[in-house]
Amino acid sequence: MTVVRAASGGFSGKEDAVATEEPLEIRVSYEKRGGLRVTRSVSVTMRTPGNDAELACGFLFGEGIVRDAGQIIHVGPPEGVAAGNIVVVSLGSGTEVDLGSLERHFYTTSSCGVCGKTSIEALRLKCKALEPGDAPTMDFEDLLRLPERLRRAQGAFDLTGGLHGAGLFDASGGLICAREDVGRHNAVDKVIGSRLLAGAVPLGATALAVSGRASFELMQKALMAGIPIFLAVGAPSSLAVKLARQFGATLVGFVREGRFNIYSGAHRVRGADLPR
Amino acid sequence: MTVVRAASGGFSGKEDAVATEEPLEIRVSYEKRGGLRVTRSVSVTMRTPGNDAELACGFLFGEGIVRDAGQIIHVGPPEGVAAGNIVVVSLGSGTEVDLGSLERHFYTTSSCGVCGKTSIEALRLKCKALEPGDAPTMDFEDLLRLPERLRRAQGAFDLTGGLHGAGLFDASGGLICAREDVGRHNAVDKVIGSRLLAGAVPLGATALAVSGRASFELMQKALMAGIPIFLAVGAPSSLAVKLARQFGATLVGFVREGRFNIYSGAHRVRGADLPR
Repeated sequence: MTVVRAASGGFSGKEDAVATEEPLEIRVSYEKRGGLRVTRSVSVTMRTPGNDAELACGFLFGEGIVRDAGQIIHVGPPEGVAAGNIVVVSLGSGTEVDLGSLERHFYTTSSCGVCGKTSIEALRLKCKALEPGDAPTMDFEDLLRLPERLRRAQGAFDLTGGLHGAGLFDASGGLICAREDVGRHNAVDKVIGSRLLAGAVPLGATALAVSGRASFELMQKALMAGIPIFLAVGAPSSLAVKLARQFGATLVGFVREGRFNIYSGAHRVRGADLPR
Repeated sequence: MTVVRAASGGFSGKEDAVATEEPLEIRVSYEKRGGLRVTRSVSVTMRTPGNDAELACGFLFGEGIVRDAGQIIHVGPPEGVAAGNIVVVSLGSGTEVDLGSLERHFYTTSSCGVCGKTSIEALRLKCKALEPGDAPTMDFEDLLRLPERLRRAQGAFDLTGGLHGAGLFDASGGLICAREDVGRHNAVDKVIGSRLLAGAVPLGATALAVSGRASFELMQKALMAGIPIFLAVGAPSSLAVKLARQFGATLVGFVREGRFNIYSGAHRVRGADLPR
């Protein structure tokens, strides 16, 4: 699009590429007890078009609605509608669906109210903690290289500067899958959805890297997929750190200029002995 | 908290401050027709504690539930509960509340499905466009200074690196109000809520600056509050640009190194003539 570039020398017209943002409506089709098939709209998310089936499936997996790829019998636009901004995920008969857990206020509203503790407890019902021995361990040097590898895999970023990236890596820092989106949570959903549809979830000995900060929401998505190492180029939040510590995950933040901080699970990072 | 700092020289323990993230449940108390007072939970948002009354009121204003400060008779924790992670916004009798517009899927699900166009049309029902002559116009040099002024007003950022900032400025670049939060949308809600509670909404001749990118959601919040100039340090999305253009707002992005891009409404930026 044509925009106005303003600088001290004056204003000029220029062509500028911007990151595409469009709403995506995610619907679930499933059989109720008794065999009646129903379709429900469960979310509208503002996303960058592309990999929408992955996004929808990754989102439903992160919410605990879909547990494994075998439950999914079809993903696509509604019958008779061209591909666009609606994706219907059809689940096989016999799949029990609890849409109540999709409510945004799923944090138990107990007499003591919502808090970080109740948010973490709510996740315990859906997701089990990692074991200290769960792979992978990774070299300090390999972890350090992930942001640059993610950046290289992000085709549109250099063009628009407006897309977040998420990348899944193996234990030696090899890229498995990278996706980008205007929303960081969508980029993570796309990566996890991609692996889910490939039948590779839970993800086991992998590390997930994101281009920005680490929030509770992103850490939760990584844990639901069984990813032991989460790496954020930016800062983590207090609740992301608490969640990582309570679920035994490794959380690395502020990866820049040859160093990073380990907020949780330092035993999975090889490279130097801890000071005594 | 104590974290492990990993660098090529080895690992060491260090103290690190992280940005606080906790859930906030927003409830609305209102009278139904017939006079029955009910309280409904309308949202749980992950936020940085502080200015919670502003956040709750700004959120409800942005959603079109609250139209002016006069409708609000009380804001605080539920009766008999200490201040914490629940805020109840009590509305005066006679205030009609349409919680249906709070549904996340409020984008009309017409036969053609959701898209950027339907998202923008949905906003037209709640919010009127700006006029080309609506103040303010601002100097190029003053706009250029807003990110640094916002940064100076962000107390916790330098400590944690993990907080987004939003700041409201007058036509000569003077700071009116700045707030920060782990969520950029929350920082914007806090700024607008603060002005709403001060009886100063619609905001008229002001500019809103945010620390990161400009999305549809943030642009929508600025328009609901009648803010004519929106400035993002980072990139805007395609839908933020479309929305700004259709509603006659000024949208500035990529403010860095003495220059910026104007994506919409260049007539509100003084400083140089446009090339012919």
